Amino acid sequence: MEYNFSDKINPVKPSAIREIFKVLQDKSVISFAGGNPAEESFPIEDIKRLSAELLEKSAGQALQYSQTEGYPLLREQVKARLKEKFSIGSEQDELIITSGGQQAIDLTAKVLCNEGDTVICENPSFIGALNAFRAYNLNLVGVDLENDGMNIEQLENALKTEKNVRFIYVIPTFQNPMGITTSLEKRRAIMELARRYNVLILEDNPYADIRFSGHDLPTLKSMDTEGRVIYAGTFSKIFSAGMRVGFCLAPKEVIAKIVVAKQVNDVHTNIFFQMLLSNYLSSCDLDSHILTIRALYAKKSSAMLEAISKYLPGDIEVTRPEGGLFLWVTPREGTDIDALVKELAARKVAVVTGKAFQIDENSPAKSFRLNYSMPTLEKIEEGVKIIGEVMK
Amino acid sequence: MEYNFSDKINPVKPSAIREIFKVLQDKSVISFAGGNPAEESFPIEDIKRLSAELLEKSAGQALQYSQTEGYPLLREQVKARLKEKFSIGSEQDELIITSGGQQAIDLTAKVLCNEGDTVICENPSFIGALNAFRAYNLNLVGVDLENDGMNIEQLENALKTEKNVRFIYVIPTFQNPMGITTSLEKRRAIMELARRYNVLILEDNPYADIRFSGHDLPTLKSMDTEGRVIYAGTFSKIFSAGMRVGFCLAPKEVIAKIVVAKQVNDVHTNIFFQMLLSNYLSSCDLDSHILTIRALYAKKSSAMLEAISKYLPGDIEVTRPEGGLFLWVTPREGTDIDALVKELAARKVAVVTGKAFQIDENSPAKSFRLNYSMPTLEKIEEGVKIIGEVMK
Repeated sequence: MEYNFSDKINPVKPSAIREIFKVLQDKSVISFAGGNPAEESFPIEDIKRLSAELLEKSAGQALQYSQTEGYPLLREQVKARLKEKFSIGSEQDELIITSGGQQAIDLTAKVLCNEGDTVICENPSFIGALNAFRAYNLNLVGVDLENDGMNIEQLENALKTEKNVRFIYVIPTFQNPMGITTSLEKRRAIMELARRYNVLILEDNPYADIRFSGHDLPTLKSMDTEGRVIYAGTFSKIFSAGMRVGFCLAPKEVIAKIVVAKQVNDVHTNIFFQMLLSNYLSSCDLDSHILTIRALYAKKSSAMLEAISKYLPGDIEVTRPEGGLFLWVTPREGTDIDALVKELAARKVAVVTGKAFQIDENSPAKSFRLNYSMPTLEKIEEGVKIIGEVMK
Repeated sequence: MEYNFSDKINPVKPSAIREIFKVLQDKSVISFAGGNPAEESFPIEDIKRLSAELLEKSAGQALQYSQTEGYPLLREQVKARLKEKFSIGSEQDELIITSGGQQAIDLTAKVLCNEGDTVICENPSFIGALNAFRAYNLNLVGVDLENDGMNIEQLENALKTEKNVRFIYVIPTFQNPMGITTSLEKRRAIMELARRYNVLILEDNPYADIRFSGHDLPTLKSMDTEGRVIYAGTFSKIFSAGMRVGFCLAPKEVIAKIVVAKQVNDVHTNIFFQMLLSNYLSSCDLDSHILTIRALYAKKSSAMLEAISKYLPGDIEVTRPEGGLFLWVTPREGTDIDALVKELAARKVAVVTGKAFQIDENSPAKSFRLNYSMPTLEKIEEGVKIIGEVMK
């Protein structure tokens, strides 16, 4: 038989990240390609104890259908934490638990956008979000990402000229893939432009807690007095990625629609892990656990940067992240990145071509992304050394 | 601020089932309204043991990101089980693990349908599916459901006259809400019409294992020689509803697109429970566990039917399910069902108006749905007695 697929799904390619999973199966490959948190970032001993307790005390509830909005106590705890740590959330906002931060992004696009509507994105940006938007047949407009955030002139130009712009999608903090953080000045400029052109903002902040140097900058959501910012977050990087528990905090009216969309998408997020996480938040010390993750990634990112300055050509550009999982390498102009990535794969080092994160997937890549959270310190040195050899 | 939502999400109302969760919070209410399996249908002791073992042996993997397609061993086990128990699956098929059966339905619609395309549904049908279709702006065409399945004449007429019919959505076995099973003759007729008019079929079979009387009929998928049937299933009714693990078995080409759609939707389904379920399937006896569920629901459904014949007016019609969770009561013509449902709620008995399951949500209801899996035998008698009092 021949199958006809929808216009919206047809152009979406399986992401490069998918291919990476296959690479990760080969234990002899040094992978800088994934986006996985280190295993040490999951509080395994606490999860063991809390899991046994939960099944002892509340198995019936933890295994049964539950509410679409999420486990009520967890919602309150996450709201309180956002308020305390990031000054996020007001009376006009509500919070829903989602199946990872990815679902918050997907459902935001679904409830806000008709096919053909425009979403303005940082270029490059998170491929999971770009593909989610593509799978609703949206018009993606990229704004170049500089070392301190989007090019504001380009952003204003896009807002002026593009039709039906529904929201600006940004990862202002430890951006994926570039690892840069949008400056306070540019954060204010983005908020001001959104107000002036009356568009919403989707602020994706999956790495919020993982700052290992420098000082916190206010989130866009914390500057939001009008109900213009939708905030997506996750526990994937600080508790467990495999459990798929994220959240979306947004104006009540938006959340009400996201609840409807989530109900027909997956009814609710795994309730066992919602309850387990809630028990963790009330009985354990998440903040001190986070400090251990920060210390770990501080060490790993430093090791990678050191190895880069030791082994890579002096004329490359590299971002110096203050948090998150990634850094971004731009070799000298004219380097054939895709050929480089292939050659590295043959030498059993996996990196991701910048092309994967571009709004226009067909223009040639200028950079590649390196992840430092997964590999050991030894593998970081070994792998970067190989990159250096291949680049020379 | 004023928010503009997408044309596809705007018309979708929060389902009546949502309201039911609130009712379920009030412990003094006798609820025949939910669709929850009995707590006894979750093998809690096995889950306790397997959970501890899994966290002891494979915590890192069980808490980490995983593949979109699902845990490889679980996929093989589910495929083998479908083959063995239901003669489902061929070389041309593939299987993906989904976040509940709901996600299989949602993503099938997403990959197959453009806005405005037609889906033919049983009328009445499962509200979660109807709303999933509505949330992609699809044209829903209802075909009256009779006691042995869809009205075949109406089905053919719809196939003849409707434009861009992409698939027929059916729950042939222990249908929700009616509790009826499509006869073998009608199963064959549906397959034949799908072939003749070259449309696909989405067979939703969440209650597959819960037959407590009569004999199994072949699934539509088992009759499928052409790759025309997409089959959605779940472990919600026999293992845990709260873990959100379902699956979709379909022609490889369709699954490939569903994988892309799932990746941007929630990346993958909770891997901890995929692995736990896989370990359960290899080390425990699911079939003997299912026998206990069947015995329980046989008792509960009989108790409800007995109470109905004892307390309800003699001129009602009621379906006599051979499996599943629901039966369907049609009072004498002219009964104001919505008023009846309201009066019952005031008497602390919750039932769902047939209106919730209609393709046309505005035409008056003629029936209401009763669930027997959740309430105890005592509450079944007590609640049906109250329904009888209110109806008289």
